[in-house]
Amino acid sequence: MKCPGLYAEGMKRTVFLVSDRTGITVEALSRSLLSQFDHIPFDQVTLPFIDTLDKARQAAQRIRQTARDGVRPLVFSSLTDPEARAALADSGAFFLDLFDTFIEALERELGARASGEAGKSHGMGANYGSRMEALNFALAHDDGVGSRLDRADVILVGVSRSGKTPACLYLALHYGLRAANYPLTEEDLARPGLPPLVAPYRERLFGLTLSPERLALIRQERRPGSRYAELATCQGEVRQAESLFRAHRIPFLDTGAMSVEEIASSIAHPAR
Amino acid sequence: MKCPGLYAEGMKRTVFLVSDRTGITVEALSRSLLSQFDHIPFDQVTLPFIDTLDKARQAAQRIRQTARDGVRPLVFSSLTDPEARAALADSGAFFLDLFDTFIEALERELGARASGEAGKSHGMGANYGSRMEALNFALAHDDGVGSRLDRADVILVGVSRSGKTPACLYLALHYGLRAANYPLTEEDLARPGLPPLVAPYRERLFGLTLSPERLALIRQERRPGSRYAELATCQGEVRQAESLFRAHRIPFLDTGAMSVEEIASSIAHPAR
Repeated sequence: MKCPGLYAEGMKRTVFLVSDRTGITVEALSRSLLSQFDHIPFDQVTLPFIDTLDKARQAAQRIRQTARDGVRPLVFSSLTDPEARAALADSGAFFLDLFDTFIEALERELGARASGEAGKSHGMGANYGSRMEALNFALAHDDGVGSRLDRADVILVGVSRSGKTPACLYLALHYGLRAANYPLTEEDLARPGLPPLVAPYRERLFGLTLSPERLALIRQERRPGSRYAELATCQGEVRQAESLFRAHRIPFLDTGAMSVEEIASSIAHPAR
Repeated sequence: MKCPGLYAEGMKRTVFLVSDRTGITVEALSRSLLSQFDHIPFDQVTLPFIDTLDKARQAAQRIRQTARDGVRPLVFSSLTDPEARAALADSGAFFLDLFDTFIEALERELGARASGEAGKSHGMGANYGSRMEALNFALAHDDGVGSRLDRADVILVGVSRSGKTPACLYLALHYGLRAANYPLTEEDLARPGLPPLVAPYRERLFGLTLSPERLALIRQERRPGSRYAELATCQGEVRQAESLFRAHRIPFLDTGAMSVEEIASSIAHPAR
């Protein structure tokens, strides 16, 4: 026997993210909206590539089953095909239709009809080649190696373990920027002026820094008990690196409490 | 003198993407919706980290200026603060408010109030550590190197230049999967059975393939005129690789016309 109240209490609310392509947009939207309700536990199920009416019906069937088994599920859909959307809407779920919600208003504003083709925003679009080229560049110009810094859009500089590599990969993959990175060694920091390898590109440099305490923690994980990971070492390096940034007017970020997305967005969209 | 008709015709429509955090969600939403109007030229401006009323007013000022200079701009906003949203809405633009549109309906459905805190979906959330760990794993287990394949969530296999590295990086960065990759060499393909290094993990293998013609094109860019890039070589390798996948019931994808996001989404959400 089902006991609805009890049932609902112990259960996560299922959220279906339905897309005719990757589902990345609708996942981002749902994550953004549901993060506003962070005390409610959600169980996310992404159903990507729902690009035929048949698949839409199967998805609806699966959602209907979940609705029958417990609390009413949520559905975020970015399907573009009207029939597929109708099939999905008829699944007993709480249905948020991205396409339906915004597209009519946009059609009116733009004085044009939506093409109705399946989402292409995460496909091989016009800038795909340059994003992949940027990624290859980032991989080939990681940690001070690589010979074409002159082709970099941005060169991240910072002490070892300040988060340069993930930021470069994200800048390349997501923003299509040719991002190189150069680690500031103790030798670099002891020397006056910028490291010779990056000095010619001062206006493309971007510094990453973080608190010595946090840096020591990260380095301890990597080389426990080493001088490299000692707080005093980290304090010295961070102080010198930040002095270098200030002396050469290199913009820099404290990345200690920032995600790679936040770091990359800050670099890709500098404040004016 | 302004000549409105002429002005509008030659001009791109400016789209402002305004967020109190990275802007990644609102960029994805706008890209997805505007890809439905692909004959209209848009000029995108992302304004991330609009996290004070002051910054919102400055953003509104900038948008108002654009509205004055040409065609009415579009604004996609995911701001959560009511005052900041009001400031932005009052900018003379065509205003799509992500928060306003969906949050009330969600509040009713969930029987809970939105927290109203700035978006956290691309911040250092609960799974951030594991995403970064996955990225380090992917970097350390690229192209057949790395010693901890037993810890991999997925191991991509395929001939040289079938797109394994970008897919692994995306799987790690975006989906938090520990993704390794192993290149099928001519030696591997000539030998019966799976390569010894990956054979113990058959159920975690995922194959990438593409047409020999496309592979030859990609390899030509890398090593023009080489035997490695010859069509006959590519035909042989692709045929053998696909036979291997079939013989060992390894799921595989033809990545020739797929973006890295599409490949990663297919692998992260296998069809049931």
